[in-house]
Amino acid sequence: MSMLPLGYRAAGLPRHDRPRPSRHGLAIFYSDRTAAAGATFTTNRVKSAHILVDQKQLRKGKSQVIMVNSGCANCCTGKRGIRDAEKTIIWASQALDVHPDRVLVASTGVIGDFLPMDLMSEEIPLVSKKLLGPDGVHVQSFHKAAEAIMTTDTVPKIASASVRIKGQEVRIWGCAKGAGMIHPAMTPSGKPHATMLAFLFTDLEMNSKSLTELLARSTEKSFNRVTVDGDTSTNDTALLLANGAASVSCTTAKEKEAFAFALDQVCVELAKKMAKDGEGASKFLEIRVDGARTERDAQRMAMTVATSPLVKTAAYGEDSNWGRVLAAIGRAGVELDPFKVDIYFGRLCVFRQGAPTSVSAEKAREPLKAKEVTITIRVHQGTAQGLYWTCDFTGQYVDINARYRT
Amino acid sequence: MSMLPLGYRAAGLPRHDRPRPSRHGLAIFYSDRTAAAGATFTTNRVKSAHILVDQKQLRKGKSQVIMVNSGCANCCTGKRGIRDAEKTIIWASQALDVHPDRVLVASTGVIGDFLPMDLMSEEIPLVSKKLLGPDGVHVQSFHKAAEAIMTTDTVPKIASASVRIKGQEVRIWGCAKGAGMIHPAMTPSGKPHATMLAFLFTDLEMNSKSLTELLARSTEKSFNRVTVDGDTSTNDTALLLANGAASVSCTTAKEKEAFAFALDQVCVELAKKMAKDGEGASKFLEIRVDGARTERDAQRMAMTVATSPLVKTAAYGEDSNWGRVLAAIGRAGVELDPFKVDIYFGRLCVFRQGAPTSVSAEKAREPLKAKEVTITIRVHQGTAQGLYWTCDFTGQYVDINARYRT
Repeated sequence: MSMLPLGYRAAGLPRHDRPRPSRHGLAIFYSDRTAAAGATFTTNRVKSAHILVDQKQLRKGKSQVIMVNSGCANCCTGKRGIRDAEKTIIWASQALDVHPDRVLVASTGVIGDFLPMDLMSEEIPLVSKKLLGPDGVHVQSFHKAAEAIMTTDTVPKIASASVRIKGQEVRIWGCAKGAGMIHPAMTPSGKPHATMLAFLFTDLEMNSKSLTELLARSTEKSFNRVTVDGDTSTNDTALLLANGAASVSCTTAKEKEAFAFALDQVCVELAKKMAKDGEGASKFLEIRVDGARTERDAQRMAMTVATSPLVKTAAYGEDSNWGRVLAAIGRAGVELDPFKVDIYFGRLCVFRQGAPTSVSAEKAREPLKAKEVTITIRVHQGTAQGLYWTCDFTGQYVDINARYRT
Repeated sequence: MSMLPLGYRAAGLPRHDRPRPSRHGLAIFYSDRTAAAGATFTTNRVKSAHILVDQKQLRKGKSQVIMVNSGCANCCTGKRGIRDAEKTIIWASQALDVHPDRVLVASTGVIGDFLPMDLMSEEIPLVSKKLLGPDGVHVQSFHKAAEAIMTTDTVPKIASASVRIKGQEVRIWGCAKGAGMIHPAMTPSGKPHATMLAFLFTDLEMNSKSLTELLARSTEKSFNRVTVDGDTSTNDTALLLANGAASVSCTTAKEKEAFAFALDQVCVELAKKMAKDGEGASKFLEIRVDGARTERDAQRMAMTVATSPLVKTAAYGEDSNWGRVLAAIGRAGVELDPFKVDIYFGRLCVFRQGAPTSVSAEKAREPLKAKEVTITIRVHQGTAQGLYWTCDFTGQYVDINARYRT
């Protein structure tokens, strides 16, 4: 049942588990040996202090700890934000008895607030103690940690996979958070898109360079295809640790591909879970574009549909308003011949070759009544495909975001 | 009181004025002599049949009539949509006794529906008769026409100005509609941004080329700076007729500038009225960017803030969440040093040089309680300025758009 990779421990203090009510959560993930780390960060020009600090830490070599606070983004907090993050690293290194260079941090929550240092100075030793105790290796502790990184999420998001390499079982376990300010655009250098956080752990042995390459590729196919509100966050971060505890590494291209495939699976599952738990969402939407000239064109069209408030409110209303889909691809900044476009709701073709099909509006609603809806757009220009995951747009989204903080 | 230009007539049948309930409105504007016409159209790749038809009509020379139906966009209706529009032109030309080449059309409403031909064949003669009657020259008839072009608008949008040229009074009167699918990007050729419709009339004498030039310039400064939901429509159209009834034309650059200034005034007033009447809006937001490197950078940043669902829901919640403003400019695709950024709510500086000011969250809310809020972002990179108008994002927006059509 448990797919936990070997050699890891975790502990978490979710905000709803506290004696006093608080919007802060704290999670710590730990490897019993040093691990290579791969990372992708937001390309937003405004970046959380934790990203600046992690980029410095990653240059110092291997990692062993990922500490995550939720409720405060530690972003736009100037030099004090960086000093604060560094201080929490010292506290964690002392509590866990690891070198400070081995500690990575991540934050998510309100922008502009300073880290709750009093609280963290109290709780880092507490959570560390739990982690080092007998329960730290249990899957329940990893679940607690996954809960502790949540903000407006309604459920923890966990995925895992395993793959055989040289006859040996290698495991990947990951968790993620993200329900709003979600439109990731992450690259390894953190130079181009949501707050989402994802933490991935494997017991494979692999160097940082290869890990970052594979994580960047997986990120493109997973996290960077999710949008809730089109607002790319300042804090988006995905971290992948490989501690080698399974005593096996990839030597052939085929082995590497096998691991990459398993990593893709975990990342895609986490990405879809984020879209499904989008703030206020009642439906999950998969937007597919087929037959585009280039993959870039296809992704642009899929993204424009996935971020259109009109498409997303129509989905909420279960209104078969394919005109809004067509209007969205028309403004995607891609050459397009509307007279060649087909649109499908589920498997039902509602628009073909530039004109409505004979399907009635009532019939066209049917596929929209499901909890998971696929909208496919065929543009008949080439062979490239695009894919985006999102959710519908509800009054609850507005309520959550008008009231967040208060 | 009346600022109507000479030589025009109008009549309208708003949907709420009908004996039977209907979502269709019909408006006709008419000049008693042929008029030169300037036009800007949506740059959405998917275009309403009315735009294709108007572009053909405009190439044929002068115009005399603008006929507008609301409730049906006549878009994505293939060749039948074009044939339908042409048929309504014949009906109008017969009812008004003008050459069919002189009739321009415009549509707004649901995409994918065909024009209500039975209804229009009945009502075009009816409205034409009213227009040609004694009331056709009254300002009340122009108001009825402005009401008849409304869809989800809650109020008609009208603006007017006058300017002295060669000692003569020249008048401009305009009306517009637009509350949703609003993010205009119009150019004269219809090649790049909302459904908004604007119809402008002047009694100046001016040729079509100059009119289009001036209208394009005014459009950039007005309609193309409005966003409600970021969804650029397939139908956006602004038309400007100049019938020369005031018997004066611009001969000097200075006279042309004087007219351009008056035209700007009318267009900006209509543009702001659209943002104020945005679907579900409770607040009007003006987003200003100062100190950018280029105007393009400044407009990109202003637009990204103005289209951010998180900024717009925070405005609705009167939450001084300047972090969302900063996150938005950070993802605008413009080089940015967050440590140089200042943010103002009204005149209150809430963020300076990359760090929060000492203003409390409670105090920072004060400016957000007004019905009209200005958010200013200073980026200290250069001297270019940007400006966008929008509204807040409310649960009512979702309701309107989840239920539109049903």
